[in-house]
This record gives sequence, C-alpha cells and structure tokens, in this order.
Amino acid sequence: MSFTADTLLLFGATGDLARRMLLPSLCALDAENLLPENLRIVGTARSDMSDSEYRNFAREAVEKFLPHDRRGGIADFLNRLHYQPNDVTTSEGFDELAKQVGDSKDKLAIFLSTAPSLFETSIAGLSRVGLAGEGVRIGLEKPLGVDLASSCEINDAVAAAFPERRIFRIDHYLGKETVQNLLALRFANILFEPLWNAQHIAHVQITVGETVGLEDRADFYDQTGALRDMVQNHMLQLLALVAMEPPTSFGSGAVRDEKVKALRALRPLSAGESVTGQYRGGAVGGKIVPGYDEELGRDSDTETFVALKAHVDNWRWKGVPFYLRTGKRLPERVTEIVVQFRSVPHSIFEGARMQPNRLVIGIQPEENITLSLMAKVPGLDREGIALRPVPLDIAMPDAFTGTYKRIAYERLLLDLIEGDQTLFVRRDEVEAQWSWIDAIRAEWAKEKLQPKPYSAGSWGPSAAIALAERDGVSWHE
Amino acid sequence: MSFTADTLLLFGATGDLARRMLLPSLCALDAENLLPENLRIVGTARSDMSDSEYRNFAREAVEKFLPHDRRGGIADFLNRLHYQPNDVTTSEGFDELAKQVGDSKDKLAIFLSTAPSLFETSIAGLSRVGLAGEGVRIGLEKPLGVDLASSCEINDAVAAAFPERRIFRIDHYLGKETVQNLLALRFANILFEPLWNAQHIAHVQITVGETVGLEDRADFYDQTGALRDMVQNHMLQLLALVAMEPPTSFGSGAVRDEKVKALRALRPLSAGESVTGQYRGGAVGGKIVPGYDEELGRDSDTETFVALKAHVDNWRWKGVPFYLRTGKRLPERVTEIVVQFRSVPHSIFEGARMQPNRLVIGIQPEENITLSLMAKVPGLDREGIALRPVPLDIAMPDAFTGTYKRIAYERLLLDLIEGDQTLFVRRDEVEAQWSWIDAIRAEWAKEKLQPKPYSAGSWGPSAAIALAERDGVSWHE
Repeated sequence: MSFTADTLLLFGATGDLARRMLLPSLCALDAENLLPENLRIVGTARSDMSDSEYRNFAREAVEKFLPHDRRGGIADFLNRLHYQPNDVTTSEGFDELAKQVGDSKDKLAIFLSTAPSLFETSIAGLSRVGLAGEGVRIGLEKPLGVDLASSCEINDAVAAAFPERRIFRIDHYLGKETVQNLLALRFANILFEPLWNAQHIAHVQITVGETVGLEDRADFYDQTGALRDMVQNHMLQLLALVAMEPPTSFGSGAVRDEKVKALRALRPLSAGESVTGQYRGGAVGGKIVPGYDEELGRDSDTETFVALKAHVDNWRWKGVPFYLRTGKRLPERVTEIVVQFRSVPHSIFEGARMQPNRLVIGIQPEENITLSLMAKVPGLDREGIALRPVPLDIAMPDAFTGTYKRIAYERLLLDLIEGDQTLFVRRDEVEAQWSWIDAIRAEWAKEKLQPKPYSAGSWGPSAAIALAERDGVSWHE
Repeated sequence: MSFTADTLLLFGATGDLARRMLLPSLCALDAENLLPENLRIVGTARSDMSDSEYRNFAREAVEKFLPHDRRGGIADFLNRLHYQPNDVTTSEGFDELAKQVGDSKDKLAIFLSTAPSLFETSIAGLSRVGLAGEGVRIGLEKPLGVDLASSCEINDAVAAAFPERRIFRIDHYLGKETVQNLLALRFANILFEPLWNAQHIAHVQITVGETVGLEDRADFYDQTGALRDMVQNHMLQLLALVAMEPPTSFGSGAVRDEKVKALRALRPLSAGESVTGQYRGGAVGGKIVPGYDEELGRDSDTETFVALKAHVDNWRWKGVPFYLRTGKRLPERVTEIVVQFRSVPHSIFEGARMQPNRLVIGIQPEENITLSLMAKVPGLDREGIALRPVPLDIAMPDAFTGTYKRIAYERLLLDLIEGDQTLFVRRDEVEAQWSWIDAIRAEWAKEKLQPKPYSAGSWGPSAAIALAERDGVSWHE
C-alpha cells in the first residue's frame, strides 16, 4: 500500500470541517512544500460550483482560518484545487467524478467528511465507478455510528468496498503533537517505562473540558450526549495511549495491536463508577449563559457532562483508577492527561511537605508536557530540609523555539496521502470502544439514571467531585 | 547533644581559611539573623592581636570575600568578635583562653583550622583547661592524615578528649546546596529510586577539574598528590551520596550508616583501573603555564592527575563502573557528577537518533542539576519520528528566583553551632576511605607506577581517555 496519492478527493468539500480545518491544513502543508509536487485536490459536494468558485471559497477559508505567516504562495495552492458537484444520494454524479479523477484512480486518497448517513451510498457510488480499487484509500471522519451495532453497519458498508488496510479512521486528537510526544516520552526514555505501572502510578486523570454549550449542532448533540461525543472516541484513544504496552515498533500494526489490547482490558463499570450531569444557567468566562434545556428549546435527559472511574484489567494497571471527565459549559477549555505517581514509600525528610511526582500532558489549549519533581529549596534548613515541587517543561515552545502550533489535520492528511495508518483508528479499536460504552449506557438505562444538574461555569455536579474524592483523589485544576 | 553554642572558638583565626571562608560565612549568617543572638566568636592564633585589631582583620576579610549585598550591618557582626593569642605548641596560653571562654565552656563550639600536626597539642591543651567537656563540640578541618595509620593517630588524639558524637569532621563539599539537593532528588521523588541501580544506570562519572597549578602550597601538595588531595575525601564522599541505600531518616546516624556501607563496598582496584598523570607546560585559559616540575623547582613523581574506574560491590551496583577523575591544570574548573542511564532496551522509533537519559549534578562552578530527556521534535516526521534530547533544569536560579549562592561553610558552621552532625564525616567513613586509597597507593608502589605526562590545558593523559573508552564510555565534557 505504499503509494503516494496524486489526487486527494474531498467529500463534503464545502462543509464546516473543510473550511475550518482541511483546506487551511492543506494550504499550510503546501506552503512548506510538504504536499506531493503534482497533487491535485478535487472537492466534491452537492452545491453547484465551478473550479474558480471553489478556489474563491478555499481562499476565503484559508484567509480566515490560517495565520498569515503560514500561508505561503496561496495562488499555487489554489491552482491545485478542482471542484466536481455530486449529489451522493443519487448515482448520477459519480461518473463525472470518476472522469475528473481520471488516471489518479490508481493513486487516490479520499477524505469522506459527510454525514455518516451518506457513507453507504457514497461508497457504493465510488465502487460502482471504479474509485475503490487497490490504488484508493479512504479516510473517514467521525462520528462512526451511535453504538456498536450502527458502527458495525457503517464499517461493514465501507468494508464492502475497502479492505481495512485502505481505511483511515480519523480521530484528530491523534494528530496532535503532544499526543505523539507522549509516546516519545514513554518509549524513548528509560526513565518512565519501568515506573509506568500500578506499583508507581496512583491514578490517571483525563479531562476534556469545553466552555461552549450546544452551538449549532443541537439536534446531533442531543441525540449523542457527552459519553458518545467525547469519551467513546477521543478520551478512550488517549486512555489507550497511556495504558498500552510498549509496541514492538512505531508502525501501524504494532501500535494499534497494543491499543486495542488496552481497550479490550477496560473493565465494565460498576454501579457508582459513573456520574452524569446537565448544565443549568450560570456564568462562563464572565458571561451569563442559559441552561441546556433553554438552549435546546425543550426538555431533555441527555447528559452534557460525564465523569467515569475506569479500570484497565491487566497486570500493569491492577488497582489504578483512570478518572475520565468531560462536559460542556465547564470553567475552562482544556484537554489534558494527568499521570499521578505514588508518594515515596517512606519520607526521610521529617516535617517536609512532599508532593508526589506528576506528569501533565496538556493537549488543549496549549500543547505541553510538564513533569513535576521535588527539589530542595535553597537555604540553610533550620527547620529541617525544605522541599518544593519544581515544574519541568518538556514543552514545545521552550525546548523547540521557532516552531508553531500546527492543525492536527495537517499530520493526518499527509499520512492519508502517503499511506501511514499508525495514527488512524482500526476497526477493532472502534468496536472495543463501543462495547465498553454500550455497556455503560445499558446500565444507565437499567438504573433509569437521570443527569444531575450543574451550574454552567462549574466543574460538573458535586457527585463528580465525590467520585474522585471518595478515593482521596482531587481532580486536577 | 542538642544545645546551641553561645561561643564559637576559632583556632587558626588569622589563617587563610578563616579569612576567605569562615569570617565571611559568619558575617553572612549574621546578616540574615541566623546566628544565635548572643553568640560570641573568639578567634585564636599565634599572632599577638587585640580585639579591635582582629575586628579590623575580619572587616577586611569580609569586605574582600563577601559580596556587598550579603554583608548587612557589619558593625554588629564585628562586635561579636574577640581575640585571644595562644601558641598551641606551648601550654601557657590555654588558661587565658579558658578565661576568655568563661561560662560558655558548657555551650561551646570549637573550629580547629590549624595544621594537623598541631591537633594533638591543641586538644591536650583544651582538655587540660576544661574546654572538652560535655558541652563542647569540635569541628576539624581536613586534611586528617596522609594514610589510614596517620589518620587513626589523629582521630585517636581527638578521641582522647572528645567522643565521636561531639566531633564534626568537615568536608566542605557536603555543605554545597546541590550535594544536598541530590539527596532530595533521590529520596523525595518516586521517579528516581526505582531506577537507581545496575538495571537502569550504565555508569557514574565524577569529575573534579582544577585549572590552577601548585599555587602557594607546593610542599604540601607534592607530598600529597591528587589521589589523596581530592579523591580520598571529596570525591569518595560524592560517590557515597550517589551510591548509598535510602537512609531511614535524614538524621546523622542513618545517613552516615548508609554512606559508610557504600564506602566499605568499594572493591579494591585491579591493575589497569587507575591512571596517573603529571602536567607539563601548556596553555590554560589562553595563558602559557609551566610544567609541574618547573613550578615545583625540582623533579617529582607526585601525580597531579588521577583517573579511576571504581566498583561498588553490592546488589544495587553490580557491574556499574564509577569513573572518577581529578587533576590540576585541566581545561576547566568543574566539579560534577554524571549519572548515565542505560539506553531503552528496544527502540520502537526506527532511524531516530536516541540518547540515553542522563542526570548531571553540577557542584562547581555553577550549582545545578540537569535531567536530559528525549522528546519528539515538533513536526510532521516525514522521515520517521524525530527525537532530540531536552535538558531540564532542576536548577536553583530558574526554579528558585531570588536566591543566591552561599558559601558551603555557612551551612556547616551553623550545623556545628547547633549540633547537627548529618553533613559531617564520621570516623568510620574516613577510615573506609583511607583503606581503599591506601590499597591503591600500595599497588602503585608495587608496580612502580610513574605518572604519565599530560599537557597543561588538556584533560589528562590519553590513558585516562582510554580507561573509559575501552568500555565504550566517553568522559562528559
């Protein structure tokens, strides 16, 4: 499968993701001469548009969403773009699409950024016109289903035309620099791996906080909820990267084999190991905001917050809780992983205030990794030795000056074009994720669990605090 | 023994150590109100001097050797000072000294900074006039002997009047901030101790480099040599702090019990595990300097450089070499410990340049601790993941702003006044050090080892490079 695509075919080319992320990412890659020299980018969507109209659309997107200093010669980039209208719900447009792709059908990368309900017909159409052959790989943007059954349905539809080795399931968190840096930290240093286990790690926290409310996808969100919107994909992928055994290589097979093992080792939650919430009116960032029901315009029992206490049942992680929480209308937009090490078994420094070591992997808004060590406070220690935590930045801006923040899709689009699956999610992973999530939802349904109210601008219902505090653990803030 | 002295009696009060280190240290402590409020400082030496002459002497010393911003109200400090002439080779002056000390004889700290040849008569005199009772502790400045036998002789003479619990043997390296910080790092963090062993550490290097030549103590140095001047005391103390097992407390008993165990575990060197050198003319810091013989004015076979490959024979350190080197007329004035961790057992990042982790404890000229980790270079990794070492400063100036460099004696003088023996060297440690050193010298004598010439301004004879390189190890520079 090691070919480099000479055409990238974008479904949903006029959509929000294309505008905000994909076109700016491609332009940035082009500005750094990272795209294959002759790569054509063919956009397709329902709207009728000429090449030059689409180029205008792309120019506006790039100018709005890509910083000026990353744009390079934007005209050269726009010249790569073509547009082909196609209504995937009918079969008519696919022949024109195939014509537009031409000989590139043997070196083609497709990015399917449409509603999942359109996947099946899209793939059938592609298949029918010969755009699903050995020289075609396909990238799928989430959400892939709403539970294991519907996810299997979608995956089966894709699998009818594409074998797994040509399917690239996107979780854009995996394109983030610090997420990959976590793997470098774990596996390129002797310092961490011997300690990366239940004997030395007390617990792990993964937080994905959003300050926004429903925004413009109210219906989708209300049918989905926090558990399926965030935990099922992003957060379980982060958990898998923290928990997995060392892979034998950084190749796609080895890495994903280890991730899926960790995901399958997730123990079904017991009663009392999950808390759900729904925000009420409150204040976020100094602004009064309405409650979820008000925003939605109707009553709902969808959770906008969830906190879980998960366990990975294997030798390495026996007894180490993984606390996960995510929600809307929280006080901060933050995505981070906290690896909390255990205390030293015995303190020789009587009276000194000791804090256990901690590794914080910041993913949003800042990408950073901070290791907190104890060091001696300089001084003559008349009251016994004085210690305090020293935060060490294994940060990008400090250690690597002159670099800038990339869009996660840059990496993923390039991997799709070049054919490296390492940072894409394999079907067995998705299914392991859904299995675990479905069991949680079944338990909620059985117990008729209703989300607890929390004020917008707080860290969720107090039961979420209690979930951790019962174990003597405080959420990292 | 928990009393705070109300008089500090300084023998050798007009000597070089008093002038450069002790008086400035005491003045700095006073400026920070760290000295006991009523502490009197009585200087004694052979010269005839009045209190006010001694105060002038002290004022000059402080103004020369203590930075202005650390001096405080120097007049208050000078008012603490008194002077009592005493020729310790005769017994006459001791009665006057006892009178001067007066009631403080029950809360007295003595600092003996005279030639070791004067120890025995000094202690006999003190004892005779009642200045060696339960309320008196005595600090001894090195060198304590030239081999095990002479060291025992001195220690016996001191022990005739003072029990071990009231003897404070000074190694001023132990007063250094980073030396104590090494213990904080090892024992206040879970991160290091589980890795602090042969399984994870490849080797340890300890370097004490001097740029100076003979200076003004030619005869002493020529009788001593690098092995006894540096390795026997300072470097073996550093080695002991790196190698020791975790003590049960930071108290003097527990810490020194563990240090002496490590020192006793030193394996006698085998043939080929030591290299000696003597400098020839060359250039240091851009200046032409003469060779050792020329400086000395005669031929000599004293070593001005020594490199050793030591082993600590216990479970923790089996197979881990401790490379030690020290010399005069080296390119840099530097004292540092390098703890070199092993490589990761298997690299999953094909083609990436990996460096094993390393902890560098800088003691001179800068006090600093740097941990070197591998991290991902931000970027899209088209040629496989790119890694590079990130040096993390667990440094004083960065992590603790607003602090300044102290004189090591500040800490030690205060500990002597207050009676904390933790950072002083116990007799059994000194003797373990000498036993190991004597065996090396005996081997040299047996083999009629002559020091190899090296150019002033180089890192010693090439055989010293080879000593490490034979094991695939490069000295840290």
